[in-house]
Amino acid sequence: MTANDAERQAMRRALELAERGPRGINPQVGAVLLSPTGDVIAEGWHRGAGTPHAEVDALAKTDAARGATAVVTLEPCNHTGRTGPCSEALIAAGVARVVYAVDDPGEHSSGGAERLRDAGVDVDAGVLAEEAEDLLASWLTLQRLGRPHVTVKWAQSLDGRAAADDGTSQWITGPDARADVHRRRAEADAIVVGTGTLLADDPALTARQADGTLYDNQPIPVVLGARAVPSVAAVTRHPRPYFQRSGDDLAAVLAELGGLGVQRVFIEGGPTLASAFVRAGLADEILAYVAPVLLGGGRLALGDVGVGTIAQARRLAVASIQTLGDDLLIVARPASEGAS
Amino acid sequence: MTANDAERQAMRRALELAERGPRGINPQVGAVLLSPTGDVIAEGWHRGAGTPHAEVDALAKTDAARGATAVVTLEPCNHTGRTGPCSEALIAAGVARVVYAVDDPGEHSSGGAERLRDAGVDVDAGVLAEEAEDLLASWLTLQRLGRPHVTVKWAQSLDGRAAADDGTSQWITGPDARADVHRRRAEADAIVVGTGTLLADDPALTARQADGTLYDNQPIPVVLGARAVPSVAAVTRHPRPYFQRSGDDLAAVLAELGGLGVQRVFIEGGPTLASAFVRAGLADEILAYVAPVLLGGGRLALGDVGVGTIAQARRLAVASIQTLGDDLLIVARPASEGAS
Repeated sequence: MTANDAERQAMRRALELAERGPRGINPQVGAVLLSPTGDVIAEGWHRGAGTPHAEVDALAKTDAARGATAVVTLEPCNHTGRTGPCSEALIAAGVARVVYAVDDPGEHSSGGAERLRDAGVDVDAGVLAEEAEDLLASWLTLQRLGRPHVTVKWAQSLDGRAAADDGTSQWITGPDARADVHRRRAEADAIVVGTGTLLADDPALTARQADGTLYDNQPIPVVLGARAVPSVAAVTRHPRPYFQRSGDDLAAVLAELGGLGVQRVFIEGGPTLASAFVRAGLADEILAYVAPVLLGGGRLALGDVGVGTIAQARRLAVASIQTLGDDLLIVARPASEGAS
Repeated sequence: MTANDAERQAMRRALELAERGPRGINPQVGAVLLSPTGDVIAEGWHRGAGTPHAEVDALAKTDAARGATAVVTLEPCNHTGRTGPCSEALIAAGVARVVYAVDDPGEHSSGGAERLRDAGVDVDAGVLAEEAEDLLASWLTLQRLGRPHVTVKWAQSLDGRAAADDGTSQWITGPDARADVHRRRAEADAIVVGTGTLLADDPALTARQADGTLYDNQPIPVVLGARAVPSVAAVTRHPRPYFQRSGDDLAAVLAELGGLGVQRVFIEGGPTLASAFVRAGLADEILAYVAPVLLGGGRLALGDVGVGTIAQARRLAVASIQTLGDDLLIVARPASEGAS
């Protein structure tokens, strides 16, 4: 049986509910319980690690779940963590049908759909899967790759320089481009710089609105490099404590951040760090803010990216180009293998 | 009296006629003679230096010019060169009114409108001036600056490299970008390379269609640099003989080309030459073909452009951005003074 209109509408509502929960080590999930006639009985969402899953949250709000349909954005889990398995809770409550959007990719938590079917529950998967994948994109990356989604950002002149030959660079790009960077910082869970940039520019690493006020979400500031952070550095006044590692093993740093529930990392670290992430194949998305200026000279926005000959070129697929004031923002991702 | 509909329509026709003539040391000009009732009496256009001007060409085709209106794309000239002044010819023919688009900027040829008015002819200037300026853009540059319009073209990776670190570069950009370059070569009057590029790549410097056949118009190949062109070089087989200069004085080379009637120069010379034209302030238009690849390394598309500190940045205004297959073409011009 395919999902009906009431169920699709309930899935849209469940996606809205999911967004109320925090991004973290657990996924954002929403659930809606529908009566056999298609009326909403209860709603639930997940509020983060250690709290009830969305289905259990919804079941707790009603005594009328017997014969109901549960509409959930993610496949109900099948493992006993800090809370019992949701598939079991749905069976115990007498739910007759489960409609969900995205399969649970977790090694220990998947298999919920099979368990429900074994218990005689009607199960329909893949409803509004695309929308749910969008919502969960960075969490799914964390599950699939074992590391957060990485965005590498830099500003450059058209000819690829980060600064003039004497090191001056403020501001290559204009206010619209800078505002866009801050908006995107606020959507990240961690922001990474190298000690070179930290010592040279003393960045605050906060996500600020045009009037200087902070966005509600502030990414964790992460400093990579062996040199000490000065006690007077602006980052010491960031609303969240900074986190420093040597940066010798970028994959290990990302895995550690993933273990803290960081799903989205924003690399703003200057040419050395940007090049290192590209070289290591750890750049899932590239944001190149291109100012319409020519600078020449030796201060390059990217250094060694591990390409010795043209056949090794790191090919990208341009996802979008937009103008921001006088500047351009080119968003690109690694081209899939075999793409020209 | 402002131009009426018949006169504006005649100006559109005159612009079409102008395009029949060749680009060269003389401007492309078209003329239409209208009877007092607005009917077309005769048409004319200029076929290049030493041939009659457009107005005279039109007057030669009719005996009914008395009382007529002459619609001309450029102000009728006021000097006696190889042909007599057009203003005089119009007066002698009894033309009652002259409508033209663009003022003649020539030191020796301007003043035609005044001479006509002094003879009692009604004169209206500036009709479809924008369209006529577009047609005459490169000729007007030649008059105003005393040199041809210069387009500097390069292909680069997103990070500003012209080649991978070992020098390999074919092909950074794809077939659509290359076809666009050939189409633009065919619109130029001269194409310039340095001896470095000539010796390294042995370019044919022809403008070719996708199937390899030559465009009708082939720009004059110009080689800059002291090193000798090998007798087996592809450029020696170009349909037009090549022209070599040391390149120590770019302005002098441009002035010399201008004296030959070259209105549009296309600089394809590799990083050294491109940088030299930008540094000298001689780049009126920049075509940056940007391939969505990252290369890193030391083979930069632009070198020293004379910028030491950020305040000296060569600011551009982006005229257009288009995608060509996987690549981007960014067309830019020097930003006017004071523009941000």
